[in-house]
Amino acid sequence: MNKYKRNERIAAITQILVNTPNKVFTLTCFTELFAASKSTISEDLVIVKDIFEKQKLGKIETITGAAGGVKYIPIISLEKKAEIIENLRMELSKESRRIPGGFIYLADILYNPNYVQSLGAIFAEEFIHASIDYVVTVETKGIPLALKTAFMLNVPLVVFRNTFKADDGPTLSIHYASGSDGRLKTMYAPKNSMGKGSNVLIIDDFMRAGGTIQGMQSLVKELESHVVGIGVLFEEAMSEKKLVDDYFSIFTIDPSKSKEHVTIQSHIL
Amino acid sequence: MNKYKRNERIAAITQILVNTPNKVFTLTCFTELFAASKSTISEDLVIVKDIFEKQKLGKIETITGAAGGVKYIPIISLEKKAEIIENLRMELSKESRRIPGGFIYLADILYNPNYVQSLGAIFAEEFIHASIDYVVTVETKGIPLALKTAFMLNVPLVVFRNTFKADDGPTLSIHYASGSDGRLKTMYAPKNSMGKGSNVLIIDDFMRAGGTIQGMQSLVKELESHVVGIGVLFEEAMSEKKLVDDYFSIFTIDPSKSKEHVTIQSHIL
Repeated sequence: MNKYKRNERIAAITQILVNTPNKVFTLTCFTELFAASKSTISEDLVIVKDIFEKQKLGKIETITGAAGGVKYIPIISLEKKAEIIENLRMELSKESRRIPGGFIYLADILYNPNYVQSLGAIFAEEFIHASIDYVVTVETKGIPLALKTAFMLNVPLVVFRNTFKADDGPTLSIHYASGSDGRLKTMYAPKNSMGKGSNVLIIDDFMRAGGTIQGMQSLVKELESHVVGIGVLFEEAMSEKKLVDDYFSIFTIDPSKSKEHVTIQSHIL
Repeated sequence: MNKYKRNERIAAITQILVNTPNKVFTLTCFTELFAASKSTISEDLVIVKDIFEKQKLGKIETITGAAGGVKYIPIISLEKKAEIIENLRMELSKESRRIPGGFIYLADILYNPNYVQSLGAIFAEEFIHASIDYVVTVETKGIPLALKTAFMLNVPLVVFRNTFKADDGPTLSIHYASGSDGRLKTMYAPKNSMGKGSNVLIIDDFMRAGGTIQGMQSLVKELESHVVGIGVLFEEAMSEKKLVDDYFSIFTIDPSKSKEHVTIQSHIL
């Protein structure tokens, strides 16, 4: 008697899947919700899957077996990626963003929920097959980006800090040389912030030499886990070798060019 | 020839609306996407709207007039809210979260993408009619919560900081007395972080006396904007009067109770 029409089931299923990316929902969850048979729900899912593919709205993945079910993977189409990258490139090129010292003002972009939503999806797509257990960043500006990536991968976020407060509980800490000025800084992590042997994805907004990323790598090691991926939004072009080898970056900024022509290149398309 | 079935349109429309809460999509956007008439799309939207209401998946709102269209408002059902609140209350009551000095370890909750997604939706619902232009927080732990609230309200986030870096550009700064220890601290905001006369919603993770919130209020005033709402996740029960009057909090923690029975109460249900 509480029967739903196919249209209705499809709208509800889509909302539920899209609302929590990468979370596996069992078929039973939907058969109970709609008092429908497994075969009916399976047919619904095929329709959602096909139209998502056709319209490039992401991927509906079916997992078979005992722990089986269905999940939504937010994949951004190449066209959409190109559009985001071009918008960002134009934003970044604005004269009004130049700050003395060769810096570019980025805060509003790094805190813009729509930009970080798309950029988080790009990072998540890059590392989706790396069996990530935690996303890690260090305060402050990379937090939104790291949070969205963690949300898209459906894993917890851990934020390392440069200060140590009373409500942090027991912490592990390391010293690291910040690449930009060579100064020795401290980085703290709550001692129980991740299970031992976890796979960690490091996400940060900006990388110059890579000293801060190296610091995060050391601290992850102290937590007895391993870094399996590194994603940065902006890296600065440098003549010297970076301190970090294997990373995925979305933009390279080259401030060595004349001030009027800071080069901003993306290499993800 | 590029015609879509109703099922397919409904799945795609749902994905698009749910993916960007509070963003108004014009009917034209959908008529073009599916080569369908306005009346067809309107019928699709009624189906989505009705099932969202029936299944308590949020609200589909239609805006009439020239700037008209349709948007998705993520509203969490009372049952779901009760479930989230109860989960959190149980989490917070765990013995292992106690830190010397009467603190409770909260970082993992404040950085958990699923918790902040739900809590951000609760804040957004509370302030949806306040014509918010910006969500503001101060680093660090409130950032995920504030970001999700901003995302749900479809407005930018501004993060005030306690330090001032070379890449922040010109900043405004104020001194404020941190309520917890009475110490004088500094808070910085990028000078052009918001348009003058903006409506600001302050979101923070924790409030003791309210000194930090007061600091944010002063800084918003210096930016020639006004605070129209304050949302905090946890407030501490105090015998003295708080420094801030009108705020919305989700939990009250009372550490004055014996150590074995810290009281954690929610007042949103």
